[in-house]
This record gives sequence, structure tokens and C-alpha cells, in this order.
Amino acid sequence: MNRLETPDPNALPPLKVAMLGCGVVGSQVARVITEQADDLASRIGRRLELVGIAVRSLDRDFAGLDPALFTTDSEALVARGDLDILVELVGGIEPVRTLILKAIENGASVVTANKALLAQDGEALFSASEQQGVDIYFEAAVAGAIPIVRPLRESLVGDEITAVMGIVNGTTNYILDQMTTTGADFDDALAQAQELGYAEADPTADVEGYDAAAKAAILGTLAFHTRVRGADVYREGITRITAEDIQAARKLGCVVKMLAILKATDSGEVSVRVHPAMVGAQHPLASVGGAYNAIFVESREAGRLMFMGPGAGGAPTASAVMGDLVTVARNRVRGVAGPGESVYAKRPISPMSEVTTGYFVRVEVVDEPGVLAAAASVFASHNVSVQTVDQVAKAADESGVATAVLALSTHEARESDIQGVITELESRPFIRGEVSVIRVEGR
Amino acid sequence: MNRLETPDPNALPPLKVAMLGCGVVGSQVARVITEQADDLASRIGRRLELVGIAVRSLDRDFAGLDPALFTTDSEALVARGDLDILVELVGGIEPVRTLILKAIENGASVVTANKALLAQDGEALFSASEQQGVDIYFEAAVAGAIPIVRPLRESLVGDEITAVMGIVNGTTNYILDQMTTTGADFDDALAQAQELGYAEADPTADVEGYDAAAKAAILGTLAFHTRVRGADVYREGITRITAEDIQAARKLGCVVKMLAILKATDSGEVSVRVHPAMVGAQHPLASVGGAYNAIFVESREAGRLMFMGPGAGGAPTASAVMGDLVTVARNRVRGVAGPGESVYAKRPISPMSEVTTGYFVRVEVVDEPGVLAAAASVFASHNVSVQTVDQVAKAADESGVATAVLALSTHEARESDIQGVITELESRPFIRGEVSVIRVEGR
Repeated sequence: MNRLETPDPNALPPLKVAMLGCGVVGSQVARVITEQADDLASRIGRRLELVGIAVRSLDRDFAGLDPALFTTDSEALVARGDLDILVELVGGIEPVRTLILKAIENGASVVTANKALLAQDGEALFSASEQQGVDIYFEAAVAGAIPIVRPLRESLVGDEITAVMGIVNGTTNYILDQMTTTGADFDDALAQAQELGYAEADPTADVEGYDAAAKAAILGTLAFHTRVRGADVYREGITRITAEDIQAARKLGCVVKMLAILKATDSGEVSVRVHPAMVGAQHPLASVGGAYNAIFVESREAGRLMFMGPGAGGAPTASAVMGDLVTVARNRVRGVAGPGESVYAKRPISPMSEVTTGYFVRVEVVDEPGVLAAAASVFASHNVSVQTVDQVAKAADESGVATAVLALSTHEARESDIQGVITELESRPFIRGEVSVIRVEGR
Repeated sequence: MNRLETPDPNALPPLKVAMLGCGVVGSQVARVITEQADDLASRIGRRLELVGIAVRSLDRDFAGLDPALFTTDSEALVARGDLDILVELVGGIEPVRTLILKAIENGASVVTANKALLAQDGEALFSASEQQGVDIYFEAAVAGAIPIVRPLRESLVGDEITAVMGIVNGTTNYILDQMTTTGADFDDALAQAQELGYAEADPTADVEGYDAAAKAAILGTLAFHTRVRGADVYREGITRITAEDIQAARKLGCVVKMLAILKATDSGEVSVRVHPAMVGAQHPLASVGGAYNAIFVESREAGRLMFMGPGAGGAPTASAVMGDLVTVARNRVRGVAGPGESVYAKRPISPMSEVTTGYFVRVEVVDEPGVLAAAASVFASHNVSVQTVDQVAKAADESGVATAVLALSTHEARESDIQGVITELESRPFIRGEVSVIRVEGR
């Protein structure tokens, strides 16, 4: 096994790098590749040469780069037989999936931030790359600048991970933060986020939890050595969180956060879900603000680890891309590839109905004798044990009926049992409106 | 480049692993290798076979392992020509250095937790391993279970790290914690730590900062791509921290922590130091308790990252060892080695005298007219700008002389200037006793 020691990077031909996409992250990556060329060459052992950047239109800002690099012919770019590394920063499924597979087929290693594609069809990509003996690295797909993919993939690989819990979407974290600090309702907080660039014009992927679910699938696959796809992840966004929910959380000494929660049970199953949850105000995740991400990892030998940092943004995400790019480049210099995927464990993925957690249930009821007892027995009949109860009278409604807001938190209960409670409560005459349910984590 | 896809681990001969040491960490590592043999084999692609464990004496607990594995002949163990991986968990310089070099010479890769050896003579080890084309991995040498070595070495390798700051020694963190929460003085807090097993019978390596300095040297080498040796690190332990210092910190809204501080300046120099420092009570490091470690990394693209977790202990450190063991084993299965060292940058290491930081200076003075003015002008004459001043009268001493405690915090000042201030103050007749100085970080 030969290894070059501080070789002269100029003694060998450069590694040819192509990019798909040159947006917020891509322009930063291209800038670093250009401006840090010497340092990168020293760290890799050979120079990196940007040979092409595929974009949607040439009518654009060239970000200080050589306009000749830019092309709209992405198919020709990935079909080059001499490409060493493809950096994909476009996102989405097609045409990117086909382009990546073509690049791999032509012998290129891949660095990508594409969580949606990895969560939906990572299998095809990893299979192709293993067959060709090339790398796929994807640190930028999860948690921006924070090294979490590599630690799970290569550092904690001798340990047994039992749980992963974290804030992995900056948009929803910012919105919930705003609702918490200003008392704003969801629509206003979303508008504010969009104005400041923390949310997209079409915010669906973030606020409905698709982005978080894709990331959770990737984390779960790594943590549990088991293929977890985006479709396997229980997904619930934050669009139904109200200002009243936020207030109720505060009253309970909690904060509402959008969490990715991955757990392994002793019996060998795993559960992977993303949804809003109440966390105790003292929990470290409660103080993770704005666009920051934070991920807790619990494993048998290591205990509890926490990783925290900027979860999004051009420069932070570029940092993750560059780390992968140098690693993949170093591998190519030495004629090797990294360890590939490890999905041998094939652990069963529990359906959401089987998951157990705490719940906070809030509902408006008619303020009459027997209502509390009736509500309580609904819980009991579904095997859900109540931990705390709070009932507060409301002003009488238009018809003059006195109502109250009844709020209960439960001990650990089964999701299917809680769904049974909600269904039955909503069928009862003493209920006004819908039952609000927020899961409780780490209170 | 061929890569085996989910191979049958039993189809090939196992990888032969030997251990030096079977103490708190070693016994845990041996246990995991044994109990998780199937999972490890699936993740690596071949089985691991423990072929020998060298210990000081065979008159010992065999930790549930096969007594036949144990030997006192470490030289014979490392001289085996068929060893794939040596796991070194003894610590110290000799005879371990010679044994490791012998193992490398015989073609074995090395996994070690030996911070002292790496900080003192990493160069010889890395040079030998590069020549032989084998790996040296050392995640367990710094911050216990927290993946920090690998993220610096392989994830942030496309970025420019500008600062690293952290709590890397659990013993001193525990002692300072105790002093802070109970008001105990150093000696009592140390005794408490020893009683609970958080400090050794001979606590010098921890309380005098040797352990932290070795870790800082390792982190600095990785962060700045520059060889930093233990001797290059400014080292000041916590033995002179008093209960009064702790109180003064609290009054200033700060907490005293033992920190490793690594910084890169714009002009290209780097500074590496370990010493007690005041951090603002709101700073995340202020709340890192007991035996936990936490490390902040600031880099140009990524921004601010934080890593936190158990910094010591058998199981947490074993987690780091196992992660390295699987990675090194995977490399051997594929006939490759990892990227080795990157120390091309050769950045100048600033002497401590050139470092700038904030300072908190506390001294007892005679309570007479003109003393405050005289003290203040000492600061001014040495180009140190004062930020806050606090003077509190003390009860008259035995000779009836009225004294006061004068406490000043400075703006960012140069170490050599502050040393000039202290020297001059201590020469003045209005000073009683020594000047207490604690550096201030992140207030």
C-alpha cells in the first residue's frame, strides 16, 4: 500500500471536478475551490480543476468565476469520460438522479447535498457506486455545517446507537422560535421567515416536514445500519401549531420544537418520525435558536453526544461539501474508495401506531358537571394514563354556553391508543371543535 | 478499485487484533470486540480475532475474557508478523513508543488513546506508519466519546479553522465545578474528586494541565495543518485557583473553567494554550458540567460548531476506540490506508507573550489615598486598558492597617503587557500579597 507523503501537487495532472448547480451553496463551493486552490492541493495531494458548472440558464451572475465554465448541457457534462468528481447541488429527484447515475457509470465519484434523492432512492445510487468502486459522500444533505453523517457513518461505527433526536430544519425552527418569542400565529411567523429569507416562497417542503423526513431517513439508515426511506418516516409538519399551543407549552414549562426522533428498542425494532413536540425548557434542544441545528446521539458505549451548529446557508453547507470533496479527492489520489453503505441489519421499522411517547392534549369542552369525569374515563378506557390536568374557564360563547379549556398531559402512551382517545373525544357532545394533540419529548 | 458488497465475513480469514493494556478502557474494548463480534464482522467485512492482550501482571481479573489471551510479553506480541491491528491503551512514552514502532515495522495498523505520546513524538509514529502504508487512528486521545479528531481530520478538511476552544479534561472540570457549586477550596475539591474516582491518586497530569496541553497539541496539529507539540503549548493548571477567585468570577457574571484555546490570526500565526479562564455564565461552555467535555470549533465557512459529550470513562473512551478499530479494519479489508497526517502549513506558533486576551486582576491593597490612582496608572503605563473596576474594603489586618480588595477586568490586552503590570504592581509598597490574574474568554 503506497502513500504519497506531502507530494508535489503539481507533479500530477489535476483532478477534474464538475458541478451541477451554482446557487447559494454552489457559488460558495466554486469560490472556495478557486480561492483556496493551493491549500486544497496541499491537503489532497493533487490540484482540483473545475471543468464545468451546469446551470439552468446562462443569463445569470457568474459569481466572479470564468463564464466559460458555465453550461446548460448537464448531460454532456456528466457523460465526460474524464470526470473525477461530480458535485451535485441542484436537489430534487429528476433529472438529477439520471445525471448522477450517468456520472457514476462514467467513473466519477459523487458529492451531494440531495436529501430528497438519497431518502427516496439512495439504494440505486449506492448500488451503482459500489459496483463502479467510486464514492458517494453526502454530509451536506443533513444539518448543514455540522459533521453528523461522517460521525455516524465512520466514528460511531463500533458502537450501538439507541437514539437520535434533533432539530434538522432551520425554517421550522425559526418559525416556532418567532411564535414563541413574539406570540405571533403561524401565518405571521411564516411571512416573517419568508421576508428574511429563512423560508421559501413555497414553504411546503419545510413546514410540512418533507425536508426533515428525508434527513431523518438518512440519519436512520446510518444510525441503525438499516435502509430507511423517506416514505418509512412518520411525517407531521408545523402548520397546525397555533399561538395557543405555544402558550400552553410555556405554561407546562416547555417549548414547541419540530423534531426528528429516531429510536431503537431492545426488541430490535426501530422507529423514525418527524413532528412537532414539546421539550422541557431546560432541555438543551429548547435553547437551539433560529436557523441552528442540533442533534443528540445516544449510544451504548459513548453515552449522550451532542452536535450543534449552523444548519443551513451558503457558507455552512459549502463547508460540508468541501469536507466531502477533499475526502473523496484524497481517495481518488490513492486509488481507493470509502467504505460505502452498511445496511446489513435490516431491523424492522415500527409503524407509528406502535410508537410510545408522552402526549399533551388540549380541547375546549362545555363547562358542565360530569364533563371532566367523562373526558378522564375516555383516556382510561384507552389505556392512557394521565399525568397532569389543567382546566381553565373561557368566556361564554355567542350562544351563552360556558366552556372551558381542558389540557391534559399523559405518561408514556401508545400512539394508537391516543388516536383512539382523540377519535372518541371528538365524537362526544361535550367537545367544542377539534382536539389538539402535541407529542411530548424529554420533559 | 474493487469493493466487496456485504461480503460473507466468514469467507476470509479474520483480522488479527492485539491489545496493549486491559484497564478501565481496555477491558471495555475487549468486551465489545467479543460481545458484538457478529455486528462488527458485518460492518467490517471480516471477523476480528483478539490474539493477545499484553498486561503488566497475570495476577489480575481477566474481565470475563479467555485467560489464555493475556501475556506479559508485550515485545513478542508486537513482533508477531501476522498482526493486523494493534490497540494501545497503556499510555505514557516508553516502553509504549518502542512497542508501537515495532508493531508498525511489522505491518500492523495502530489505534491508540495515547495523547502524551502523540503530542511529544507523533512525528516519529506518523512517519513510520506512512512509510509502511498503515494507519494510525487516535480519536480516543482527545475528548473521550466525542468525535472530534475525525471531524477535524476528515470533515472540516475543506474549510479554514480559525479557532478551537473547549473543555478537554474531566478532572479539572469536575474540581472547578465543585468549587463553584459548594464554595470548597481547591484542596477539598481535589480530595472529593479523588474519592469519587474523578481524579488520580497522583493528580498532577490533570491539575497541572499536562493532559490538556497534550490534547491541545493534537487538536492544534489537526486544526491548523501544522505540527504542534506538547512543548509548544502554554500550560497553566488550576492549582492556584482559590475559592475567592470563584467568588470573584460569580460577581463578574462568570464561571472559571479550565480551557484549551487555539486561535489562528489573520497574519497566519497560531496560538495554542491551556489555562484557567473566566467564561460568561451565559456561554455554552459555562454549563458543561462534571466529567463532560465540550469543544467549540470556529471555521471560515462552517461558522461555529459545538461538540459535547462524555470526556472520559471506560465505555465512552471505548466507543472512540471501537470507531477507529472498525475504520482501520475496513481499510485493511480493502487493502488501503487512511489519509495520514496533513502538516504542510507550517504556520508560526506565537509565543504566549504575544497572545492577546482579556484579564481579570485581583489584588489586596492598602486602603490609602492615591492607591487606586497609582494602580490604575500602572495599567495605563503598560498599555492595558481597564474595562471594569471593583474595590471592596476588608477588615483591618493584625497590624491595624486598613486594606481593600481591588479587582479590575481589562479589555483585550497583550500577555507581555499584563505580565509587566503584575511585575510592577508586586513591586509597589501598597500591594499586600500576590496579584491574582485569571484570563477572561468569551465574556
